[in-house]
Amino acid sequence: MADIPARTEISGPDSLNVTTGPLPASRKLYLSGKQHTDIRVPVREIALEPSALEPPVRVYDPTGPYTDADAQIDIMRGLPSVRGEWVRARGDVEDYDGRAVRPEDNGIRGSRKASAAPLFPNVVQRPLRAKSGQAVTQMAYAKRGIVTPEMEYVAIRENLGRERAIENRDPGQPFGAEIPDLITPEFVRDEIARGRAIIPANINHPELEPMAIGRNFLVKINANIGNSAVASDVAAEVDKMVWAIRWGADTVMDLSTGDDIHTTREWIMRNSPVPIGTVPIYQALEKVGGIAEDLTWDIFRDTLIEQAEQGVDYFTIHAGVRLPFVPMTAKRVTGIVSRGGSIMAKWCLAHHKESFLYERFAEICEICRAYDVSFSLGDGLRPGSGADANDEAQFAELRTLGELTKTAWDQDCQVMIEGPGHVPMHKIKENMEEQLKHCHEAPFYTLGPLTTDIAPGYDHITSAIGAAQIGWYGTAMLCYVTPKEHLGLPNRDDVKVGVVTYKIAAHAADLAKGHPAAKMRDDALSRARFDFRWRDQFNLSLDPETAEHFHDQTLPAEGAKTAHFCSMCGPKFCSMKITQDVRDYAAKLNTDEMTAAEEGMKDMSEKFKDEGAELYVPAESR
Amino acid sequence: MADIPARTEISGPDSLNVTTGPLPASRKLYLSGKQHTDIRVPVREIALEPSALEPPVRVYDPTGPYTDADAQIDIMRGLPSVRGEWVRARGDVEDYDGRAVRPEDNGIRGSRKASAAPLFPNVVQRPLRAKSGQAVTQMAYAKRGIVTPEMEYVAIRENLGRERAIENRDPGQPFGAEIPDLITPEFVRDEIARGRAIIPANINHPELEPMAIGRNFLVKINANIGNSAVASDVAAEVDKMVWAIRWGADTVMDLSTGDDIHTTREWIMRNSPVPIGTVPIYQALEKVGGIAEDLTWDIFRDTLIEQAEQGVDYFTIHAGVRLPFVPMTAKRVTGIVSRGGSIMAKWCLAHHKESFLYERFAEICEICRAYDVSFSLGDGLRPGSGADANDEAQFAELRTLGELTKTAWDQDCQVMIEGPGHVPMHKIKENMEEQLKHCHEAPFYTLGPLTTDIAPGYDHITSAIGAAQIGWYGTAMLCYVTPKEHLGLPNRDDVKVGVVTYKIAAHAADLAKGHPAAKMRDDALSRARFDFRWRDQFNLSLDPETAEHFHDQTLPAEGAKTAHFCSMCGPKFCSMKITQDVRDYAAKLNTDEMTAAEEGMKDMSEKFKDEGAELYVPAESR
Repeated sequence: MADIPARTEISGPDSLNVTTGPLPASRKLYLSGKQHTDIRVPVREIALEPSALEPPVRVYDPTGPYTDADAQIDIMRGLPSVRGEWVRARGDVEDYDGRAVRPEDNGIRGSRKASAAPLFPNVVQRPLRAKSGQAVTQMAYAKRGIVTPEMEYVAIRENLGRERAIENRDPGQPFGAEIPDLITPEFVRDEIARGRAIIPANINHPELEPMAIGRNFLVKINANIGNSAVASDVAAEVDKMVWAIRWGADTVMDLSTGDDIHTTREWIMRNSPVPIGTVPIYQALEKVGGIAEDLTWDIFRDTLIEQAEQGVDYFTIHAGVRLPFVPMTAKRVTGIVSRGGSIMAKWCLAHHKESFLYERFAEICEICRAYDVSFSLGDGLRPGSGADANDEAQFAELRTLGELTKTAWDQDCQVMIEGPGHVPMHKIKENMEEQLKHCHEAPFYTLGPLTTDIAPGYDHITSAIGAAQIGWYGTAMLCYVTPKEHLGLPNRDDVKVGVVTYKIAAHAADLAKGHPAAKMRDDALSRARFDFRWRDQFNLSLDPETAEHFHDQTLPAEGAKTAHFCSMCGPKFCSMKITQDVRDYAAKLNTDEMTAAEEGMKDMSEKFKDEGAELYVPAESR
Repeated sequence: MADIPARTEISGPDSLNVTTGPLPASRKLYLSGKQHTDIRVPVREIALEPSALEPPVRVYDPTGPYTDADAQIDIMRGLPSVRGEWVRARGDVEDYDGRAVRPEDNGIRGSRKASAAPLFPNVVQRPLRAKSGQAVTQMAYAKRGIVTPEMEYVAIRENLGRERAIENRDPGQPFGAEIPDLITPEFVRDEIARGRAIIPANINHPELEPMAIGRNFLVKINANIGNSAVASDVAAEVDKMVWAIRWGADTVMDLSTGDDIHTTREWIMRNSPVPIGTVPIYQALEKVGGIAEDLTWDIFRDTLIEQAEQGVDYFTIHAGVRLPFVPMTAKRVTGIVSRGGSIMAKWCLAHHKESFLYERFAEICEICRAYDVSFSLGDGLRPGSGADANDEAQFAELRTLGELTKTAWDQDCQVMIEGPGHVPMHKIKENMEEQLKHCHEAPFYTLGPLTTDIAPGYDHITSAIGAAQIGWYGTAMLCYVTPKEHLGLPNRDDVKVGVVTYKIAAHAADLAKGHPAAKMRDDALSRARFDFRWRDQFNLSLDPETAEHFHDQTLPAEGAKTAHFCSMCGPKFCSMKITQDVRDYAAKLNTDEMTAAEEGMKDMSEKFKDEGAELYVPAESR
């Protein structure tokens, strides 16, 4: 059942609650592959009322086993393996004794003597890595012409309902995106090979249900979670991860900056069916007591290995924050607002040296290719206010990210590029165009952008306006913004509002890009609305519970949910009802009458065209 | 004080509560005119902390006397006259014995014997109208070259802060809007004369603080209120009106469809400093017991007079729903969803006759010009789903509205045009372009549009995405959508969320259009954010209370509001703090070093340009 916490007792001070069970009227189906017959791709099917005379509506489903009525969820054990066998079957990996967890991985140093968080009971002691000289990335396979199970999985997921949708396809305005009528495994492979899409899928994250990020796929969304120095605990973060994907998050970033980072991440990884991203410099900074200038390549490198062994699927690396770009931010209204960006700026200034992330980038690639950790090249110099949007610092960094993309691709590493931030509407398109141009169509992954700075408390909305647009223009994944942005840490409710808001932005973008399958859900819901199938209207919505709750605030009686009216107009008059009269009327019009009516309209239209503005002469003084 | 209901005792079953007092850190100033020295134009001034070393920030203020600390608010008496003297001074109006209120005006018929609503105590018995043969519209004066007090009032309001803003003006991307650096009274006059803007200002609404709607002015927003057959009462509607303008609604539409429509409207009119719009066919329908086919021109005409005498500032008239267009909706997914549109469609079908609104349009104009009621030409055939957007029915009606615009202009009537509705993003621009083309730049006034149909409960957001875009493209006023859209009647909280969301959309549009004064508030807030002036950040926001509340959820201590850190990163590390180091560093760089750095960057950039994509050869298989 939805929203009833499934309590799982664990040893230790916290108890882990996550929400499980299907969404209303929904069941989970698994589709199998043709090339890889053992893959089981989840799809959510929403049943309609019998009076609809319509088949169930299938929707993309990132929620994992948590919404499967038959799944046994055990947070203590973690999720079952989805792709462990696929990885091993390729024969290019080996297991080895992993790096031992060190006290500083969990912020244990100085006066802090012990971890407060319970350890995950089933830590894998021997992680996988590529055998010497091998590249185990999806890009490496794609370049060699191999369709991996991950690629076929993604093709089936993305292709949802498209065979039915092709005939009614609205071409949209795709701004150069090339979305085929049908997504084939080979199409996925080719997109990965040319770097236009990625499948973030660390070989040490067997629980992952593969998904793709690229401009020719459905627009994805990311939700950020994570503790901070002032709040949060392990149980709350695992709960937020499950909660975020329940409402539609396609990936989750763990941005923890407090204590117990390593342990928190282990719980998240082992229970996550979606790719997990991190910003490794955050943990590295904790290891040096928060003193940016004390960071070293060795500490950073060690952190990368630590996280790669745990299964992190993508790393935000701010390697574009170069020393010469730092002074470009001095005259900004809001300077450097990216946490990672400012850490690196501080380091560069303190040492008066080029960034070690930039200088050691090839070495970082070596690590990423050995575990298939995708790059999310961070925009450390993104604008923190509309005033700073699209400035010299931002675009200098972007061009550097394009350079680094090529370096990473040369090593078969998968790459996406992070983008702003705060950008007024008229400057959004330039961001997308510059990114496409300088980063060679590597997927763009943007935060918002926020289109105005004057609405703290509503920045999910200021940014959804920008996110929908940049998604339409070509951004492949949108990083959510919650109502608490700039003000505090999101709680459970904020996470849900942020995710649903970004599902709206992503879906609006899919519709505008002309994604063949996107429109089916809108049309089904619109028909339900028109037919007063209230239950179907709720169940087809992004948030059935809120929709029903709002309806019930005005008309709480159960009968009102089958009533052919609503609270806006009341029972006596209803525009929807009148339309039925129109249909009856139109049906009764025989062909002659119809033709006459059409002729009449044509006449009128001709007349209008002929006489135009001259028909009604302007008033004398104009 | 904000948000403390000021209880006003009234005789009768209801008690009227409205929220009064200034918004946080704000005071109301009144600016006087140069041509009309007696006008007092309200401006809200937000004080900043002394450490800001910045002057207070002035913002546009539609809130009326309710936020004036010195105002005596008495709902029983209504607001004081702002412009009664201006109207009389023109010498072209006369008072007369108004139409007597009839029982059916308040839904008293059949079994309903008496009104439940208390009467407004101070009804004007002798309304004003134009002397015989006179046109008393702002357009009529404008065409004669007259700058009315209303026009100068608007110029001062719109010009807010612009003299300071000109130098930093971001040109934006105005899509053909021609926004001058400074708005002069003569510019307002010329825009009114050519029909590109309106000042909705019924001569019987002396309480009005004039405002303009037009593509070369700030984008405005409208909030809908009104009772229905199933809910609401007089006190709640007056409260919602005051509450809506408190958060920024520029006009309010009273869409009441239940009992006591006349009396409810009287309370609203007498207490409203903003233009009030109505859909007269709603009340006319009530007068004929809800039977659309029983409507007659006489009943409709009488309703127009009734409402014009009360002071309604604009009428939605669905005169474009013509008989030949009605069958065009038969194949739609959601038919006709406009209530007014379906009433007229029903009438046309029942009588198999052309709409009386269309045929009698010239007579409607006569009424409007005698009271200066502006037209809001209704889009009765607007799409109710993305599937029906931009179809034949919608655009056939739009072209008719363009025709009617010319007819109205010939009679010196002010006109705006209503627009959709439900439109996916890639079809929004076409709406604006068609409207500009066929309606001769008469102001466009759109509902949303909603960019997807799959998020009931969040349609303030699905529609804000579309509203921001169409506002940018040229829409002059955005009709808000609340979270309850499609589900129920908005309560007080929904009204606030709807208004704030639409202020965001309108402001994002102003920024993108390059409105000279819009950016000042964003920049002031961004500086406050960067300086950790938390109080200033809250006070400059559209909703200070929510911003502060969200902040306090994570860091409730009063000290945290002056702390130079926030809950996201905690006290130890802060990117904002690091930027100060960057500034110190950049300042220390002497000229030689700066030049060297710049040279270095130039070199790098040249190198990149020269070698470009060839520098990093693609991997072998690509």
